[in-house]
Amino acid sequence: MIIVMQRGSSQPQVQAIVDRVHELGFQAHLSVGEERTIIGVIGDERYLTEGEFTLMPGVEKIVRILSPYKLASRDFHPQDTVVPINGCSIGGNRVIIIAGPCAVENWGQLSETAAAVAESGVHVLRAGAFKPRTSPYSFQGLGEEALEMLALVKEQTGLAIMTEVMSPEQVPLVARYADILQIGTRNMQNYTLLHAVGEAGKPVLLKRGMMSTMEELLMSAEYILSHDNNKVMLCERGIRTFETYTRSTLDLSAVPVLKQLTHLPILVDPSHAAGKSALVPALSLAAIAAGADGLVIEVHPHPEKALSDGPQALKPAVFADLVARARLVAESIGRTL
Amino acid sequence: MIIVMQRGSSQPQVQAIVDRVHELGFQAHLSVGEERTIIGVIGDERYLTEGEFTLMPGVEKIVRILSPYKLASRDFHPQDTVVPINGCSIGGNRVIIIAGPCAVENWGQLSETAAAVAESGVHVLRAGAFKPRTSPYSFQGLGEEALEMLALVKEQTGLAIMTEVMSPEQVPLVARYADILQIGTRNMQNYTLLHAVGEAGKPVLLKRGMMSTMEELLMSAEYILSHDNNKVMLCERGIRTFETYTRSTLDLSAVPVLKQLTHLPILVDPSHAAGKSALVPALSLAAIAAGADGLVIEVHPHPEKALSDGPQALKPAVFADLVARARLVAESIGRTL
Amino acid sequence: MIIVMQRGSSQPQVQAIVDRVHELGFQAHLSVGEERTIIGVIGDERYLTEGEFTLMPGVEKIVRILSPYKLASRDFHPQDTVVPINGCSIGGNRVIIIAGPCAVENWGQLSETAAAVAESGVHVLRAGAFKPRTSPYSFQGLGEEALEMLALVKEQTGLAIMTEVMSPEQVPLVARYADILQIGTRNMQNYTLLHAVGEAGKPVLLKRGMMSTMEELLMSAEYILSHDNNKVMLCERGIRTFETYTRSTLDLSAVPVLKQLTHLPILVDPSHAAGKSALVPALSLAAIAAGADGLVIEVHPHPEKALSDGPQALKPAVFADLVARARLVAESIGRTL
Amino acid sequence: MIIVMQRGSSQPQVQAIVDRVHELGFQAHLSVGEERTIIGVIGDERYLTEGEFTLMPGVEKIVRILSPYKLASRDFHPQDTVVPINGCSIGGNRVIIIAGPCAVENWGQLSETAAAVAESGVHVLRAGAFKPRTSPYSFQGLGEEALEMLALVKEQTGLAIMTEVMSPEQVPLVARYADILQIGTRNMQNYTLLHAVGEAGKPVLLKRGMMSTMEELLMSAEYILSHDNNKVMLCERGIRTFETYTRSTLDLSAVPVLKQLTHLPILVDPSHAAGKSALVPALSLAAIAAGADGLVIEVHPHPEKALSDGPQALKPAVFADLVARARLVAESIGRTL
Repeated sequence: MIIVMQRGSSQPQVQAIVDRVHELGFQAHLSVGEERTIIGVIGDERYLTEGEFTLMPGVEKIVRILSPYKLASRDFHPQDTVVPINGCSIGGNRVIIIAGPCAVENWGQLSETAAAVAESGVHVLRAGAFKPRTSPYSFQGLGEEALEMLALVKEQTGLAIMTEVMSPEQVPLVARYADILQIGTRNMQNYTLLHAVGEAGKPVLLKRGMMSTMEELLMSAEYILSHDNNKVMLCERGIRTFETYTRSTLDLSAVPVLKQLTHLPILVDPSHAAGKSALVPALSLAAIAAGADGLVIEVHPHPEKALSDGPQALKPAVFADLVARARLVAESIGRTL
Repeated sequence: MIIVMQRGSSQPQVQAIVDRVHELGFQAHLSVGEERTIIGVIGDERYLTEGEFTLMPGVEKIVRILSPYKLASRDFHPQDTVVPINGCSIGGNRVIIIAGPCAVENWGQLSETAAAVAESGVHVLRAGAFKPRTSPYSFQGLGEEALEMLALVKEQTGLAIMTEVMSPEQVPLVARYADILQIGTRNMQNYTLLHAVGEAGKPVLLKRGMMSTMEELLMSAEYILSHDNNKVMLCERGIRTFETYTRSTLDLSAVPVLKQLTHLPILVDPSHAAGKSALVPALSLAAIAAGADGLVIEVHPHPEKALSDGPQALKPAVFADLVARARLVAESIGRTL
Repeated sequence: MIIVMQRGSSQPQVQAIVDRVHELGFQAHLSVGEERTIIGVIGDERYLTEGEFTLMPGVEKIVRILSPYKLASRDFHPQDTVVPINGCSIGGNRVIIIAGPCAVENWGQLSETAAAVAESGVHVLRAGAFKPRTSPYSFQGLGEEALEMLALVKEQTGLAIMTEVMSPEQVPLVARYADILQIGTRNMQNYTLLHAVGEAGKPVLLKRGMMSTMEELLMSAEYILSHDNNKVMLCERGIRTFETYTRSTLDLSAVPVLKQLTHLPILVDPSHAAGKSALVPALSLAAIAAGADGLVIEVHPHPEKALSDGPQALKPAVFADLVARARLVAESIGRTL
Repeated sequence: MIIVMQRGSSQPQVQAIVDRVHELGFQAHLSVGEERTIIGVIGDERYLTEGEFTLMPGVEKIVRILSPYKLASRDFHPQDTVVPINGCSIGGNRVIIIAGPCAVENWGQLSETAAAVAESGVHVLRAGAFKPRTSPYSFQGLGEEALEMLALVKEQTGLAIMTEVMSPEQVPLVARYADILQIGTRNMQNYTLLHAVGEAGKPVLLKRGMMSTMEELLMSAEYILSHDNNKVMLCERGIRTFETYTRSTLDLSAVPVLKQLTHLPILVDPSHAAGKSALVPALSLAAIAAGADGLVIEVHPHPEKALSDGPQALKPAVFADLVARARLVAESIGRTL
């Protein structure tokens, strides 16, 4: 941490800062420039709040040097984390596709989608039992009934199951059925929920908040990791910008950036980002070319009848074609799918 | 709802849409333009999803005409809602100030702040017992112990208490102590929490998500209102933009806009928006001039020692001076404080 | 400037940086922390590019300490700049209102507006002769003919004239007629234009780019100031965010922030920010309460017939009422209007 | 265009709108819903301003149905536009790479880069003679001297030349030397410049404003196209968001979206978007997989000594490797490079 003093700050002001640094168990290092004096604070700044110094007389600003996350950082864990899921693994050389409908609507819809997805060579089925919806008047998911259908479809197809958990008290229930617990974009900073999935010890797919920086995403991962649950996967799903043509702006730079900053696998959800199924194939191929470890794609046998997010779902035939094209792109960069 | 057909869509495609509209219990109204045919859907579109039509052949786009919220809308409830809180009321002609520290840290800090705040003529004390923090390594609040201190300080000073609730299972506990339940910006779309505070029946201060539109804020209010809890107050606290000098960008346009769209009281929190105490007075006066029904301001006797958000807290003397100036501005627009 | 070395950077890498710093005529100051070595560069960093060091082996990142602007900075010019305009002055205790139609449309419209504006006690008339329009099919302004009408209306009413200049070759022409040259939001970083108005030596109102930070605004002011033209006024007019209810999001925090950072006067344009006339009064009062030195407001005698931006223009009677209310708010904070 | 009336608007208010629609030469089509009456305006709405109706009594809002651009639209020009450049063509099946330094700094730097770029099989060299710089204290380009060096290097290598033009009066000069005129992101809405390059009749690469929607980009293209210059290429180069890790957020969704909306070629500039050379390869491959017709990439023989934008420039060897990998990705989606 570096403390920049105001132009014209006095010697006693500088001394007061230095004394406070020592009092907190850190070392201070002074550097007197032409226009500003700066004080370097030496020690692990993750345990220091900026507020300790911001308000002391003569201080202009505080600059952090270290990233605030530790367990999620590649500095402290240089090798890629690989998360084993039901016979496949996420984070290795193979690109993984997780596909399925936004929500479980009924047995027919679920089993038809699962069969189609399994046939395309996909290993993980996604489908929501509990749905966070902007409107209280919209379909909110079938709850436990949906979880039971997912268990049945898993038995029949061998697909692993990923499904969303929305609140701490749902975690034990959902964890009984799911192979991957999904934390949705609106819950990325729901800290009681992060603690709960950390304790559950199951693989977690943590979606980036639509309003969250990559650093905040890593801090939320840190919450889960701090419970000794290291089976965390990150998912870029679009951020909110001024552009309204797409539902969100898919930030594919997040893929190479997160690969530098962290050892955790990075997946991409082009369906929620675009909000329009016609854009999903191009963005899926782009995500793979950018280096994503996997994709999360919405597939529905009859998108026009879907109870939620139909406009962004692919029909099974379009999805099968996309998987074939995605395989070629993966191979062109030396990966498999 | 209006369905815009693509240039060159066929007569059978148009007919299929019209048939689907009728099937869903709505009426269709055709308008054939030079370049596009458009179909008006007549009925209460709140119960229609766009997905019903988006994917049908020949459809270019869907335009919603009505706002998706109803109970929160001024259309359906033209008079201002006034929420009574412990002897004062929020939403009337008087501008209300809610003040206090970010978090309860210990008895000394809390009682010193409460005394100072009460002396400035303020009626409601804010202080966090459960704190949502970006980092798992930061102070997370004193929990129930803090709630008990708040009860004691209420007894001693007569101040009403506002404190944050972070998850559904905390609601019964917090509701026993608080006069106002606060929903923080990161939880604006935590729907299980919204249901829980709706059921609790207590006054709720709902903070706008830092990346949420005003429409989404009203939809979240709708969740609470749909439980017959009409004691909902909205709070603008800054939105996330590309500007990094301030922590968030305070969106004061939200005040006159929300006054048009809804009957609910609107408060403004300049402290979290700015993130810097030096900016709080100017923004507080601006919020009142813009028509806000109240302010939420952080006050701490020793901001430089605060365990959280010290840089944005005002010292009691600065706060007292601000209240005096705020009163003059309130009077200049015909309100009291 | 501070150079942060990567964890594990080598001694020769650090030495190479230090050598390069010396070679460029600066001094280096080493600080070896637990996880990172940092190198302080001592000297006037405005003349250093980050690229000098970013790519050298072992470097993690560069942190600038000083603001990149100098002439615009309050550090170097502590007193407020006051710009004299035709008998009044902008930047002193008096709040100034600049009002008029978006564009000069014809003599009747212009003279009717000017008369109404003058009667409300306003000193400066704004009206566009050259209009930057998103669509090539929209009205583009009357050009020199409009400038001649502005000269005539100035003669008749005594109002000073502010009008926009869109390209370097228009500057001499517009400068013959205008008391204030306006640089529009889309031209804030049109550097050849900034050079041209700097050389013209006339007062300039520089609007903040709708996607520009406050620092970038000050850097654009620096371009004009560097031509020894110190009659620069800044104008906040809304920035682009995800919120679509308003045309832009008026960033009133910019007022107290810019008051801290710079000595230049700060005005606010609520009309373009809101895009809806109903929101203009509340935002105007808020801008004054926030400390703005002036307002820029669109007024049109028949907004429904305006050739551009009608929806945000106030009718003369509404404007007169606003001026009266604005005066009360100005007085409540100890200023005049 | 659709005019939505307020709840409770009166019959005479509706009639006044209908009369006004007829007066303007359009037809009106009424649709009376349960809560709102809506009026469809039939005719080419590109020649209608919303302001015509927004302010009439009883109007709630105006919804545009047609896109405001025409010449740029795929509706009116279904076939892809292919722009011939000095023997190659942009917009066909072959992916084109435009590469070179940010600025021409001296003959050695330019000729060394050009040789390296030519050897990688690239056809177009980019390099700036006039540089838009945020700071007046930064290197502003060598101007005409640079243009002469570009002419010489073109003669020696056969590479086509792309260089930026910053103001209308530079157009004739730059057009004598350049094969492609580049409009930078800060000038996307510099309308006098758009008119000037439209008239020049040369191929134009129009970069998306960092704050501009795709619709605004197409409207700026429309300005150029309206001068009968149909050799317009669009370039996505990152938009401004709250994320600060990258310089801008590259919006790759723009590629498939623009392919739907317009017939013009779409290129991608990952260098300016990322601002960090380490991210450029991943984003380049992603852009090709997303369907881009070409890439614009910064290459510099000694990025650490570059006078501008060094941190985002690739060294020639890294660039050559990227071209080889890009070819594989292009082939995996059925294109050449």
